[in-house]
Amino acid sequence: MKYTVLGTNYVIRLDAGEKIVATLLSLCERDGIGSGFFNGLGAVGEAEIGHFDPATGDYSWVKLSGSFEIAALYGNISVVDGNPFIHAHASLGDETFAVRGGHLREATVSATCEITLTRFNDDIGRKRDEATGLFLLDLKPGEG
Amino acid sequence: MKYTVLGTNYVIRLDAGEKIVATLLSLCERDGIGSGFFNGLGAVGEAEIGHFDPATGDYSWVKLSGSFEIAALYGNISVVDGNPFIHAHASLGDETFAVRGGHLREATVSATCEITLTRFNDDIGRKRDEATGLFLLDLKPGEG
Amino acid sequence: MKYTVLGTNYVIRLDAGEKIVATLLSLCERDGIGSGFFNGLGAVGEAEIGHFDPATGDYSWVKLSGSFEIAALYGNISVVDGNPFIHAHASLGDETFAVRGGHLREATVSATCEITLTRFNDDIGRKRDEATGLFLLDLKPGEG
Repeated sequence: MKYTVLGTNYVIRLDAGEKIVATLLSLCERDGIGSGFFNGLGAVGEAEIGHFDPATGDYSWVKLSGSFEIAALYGNISVVDGNPFIHAHASLGDETFAVRGGHLREATVSATCEITLTRFNDDIGRKRDEATGLFLLDLKPGEG
Repeated sequence: MKYTVLGTNYVIRLDAGEKIVATLLSLCERDGIGSGFFNGLGAVGEAEIGHFDPATGDYSWVKLSGSFEIAALYGNISVVDGNPFIHAHASLGDETFAVRGGHLREATVSATCEITLTRFNDDIGRKRDEATGLFLLDLKPGEG
Repeated sequence: MKYTVLGTNYVIRLDAGEKIVATLLSLCERDGIGSGFFNGLGAVGEAEIGHFDPATGDYSWVKLSGSFEIAALYGNISVVDGNPFIHAHASLGDETFAVRGGHLREATVSATCEITLTRFNDDIGRKRDEATGLFLLDLKPGEG
């Protein structure tokens, strides 16, 4: 990983072989980033994406292996038990330009991955929700 | 909806049953948000997405029902006749990880939806364009 | 192109016939934007997207012609040899809502295209990498 910090923004480059989620987590841990969001592009060779079924409360997973363009990548940063937590979704395009997408567990960079990350001031927590079994953002109710 | 405000940024959580566009509109109305952008992820059970055909000037629509990951969600905020207006596009991945995408009319959250929204200082208007029949951003010409 | 500047953010509108990458480049050149990121939505009629194969070091390209919704568009801005450089990836949905995605070489707007762009303070460079032949972001190593 290489990066530069411009105010509250990070510009990050990951190289071949680096794992996107794990590398971002290590950056957040080192710099104490407890909330924010990021977008990215690039190419990955291995990826695992998931699909959540609310009826069963389970994820199904697929491991992709080959050559994929990151057609879309967005994630947010929060804190669980004092540790940074990345929640990211991605769309991946194969050599036919077909796109598969879902919850991004992890992906390994093949050529390069470029990420812009905007850091917020305060930490955002995340707590286990009894109803879904998911770790949801721990925010105050609004009058939506 | 639950949310927190961090400077000019909002971190928003929508829960099962909440409509994404309608809920964001209500937040913008209450807080007087007249311009900005947002990205999001999560899962939805119902969604209606559209495809605009410039040749006919009409949208075709599809209503999706099932279990979908938000593979990408981006939108902007403007003001029409004094009311907030959301323009959002989305990519939705089904249980086979296939992705369908287009203009997002509305979607109903199934598990959770997490949105980061950056608010700009001044309102941006939107006006009906005679040529297309669409409501376009009301901006000044630049020397592109 | 029409646009407004709100602090460090641009709200940009492109109209039918305008090329997204070329128009953004001209804006960056005129305003001296040397780093930042953007997201966008809208509809395009022509687009060329690429897929990079790390094994061969080559891109394969497809030219799309028809009617496409921008299901996702994200890019970053850097500087190469003193000139602004746009690196963007996109997902495009056709009239069946099927999505194709990859590296965006160029796309021509059909109805409208709306982009929010956040400008960073300092320039980010990009240099040719001998190993891949790609122009990669010129950043300092981090302890990922």
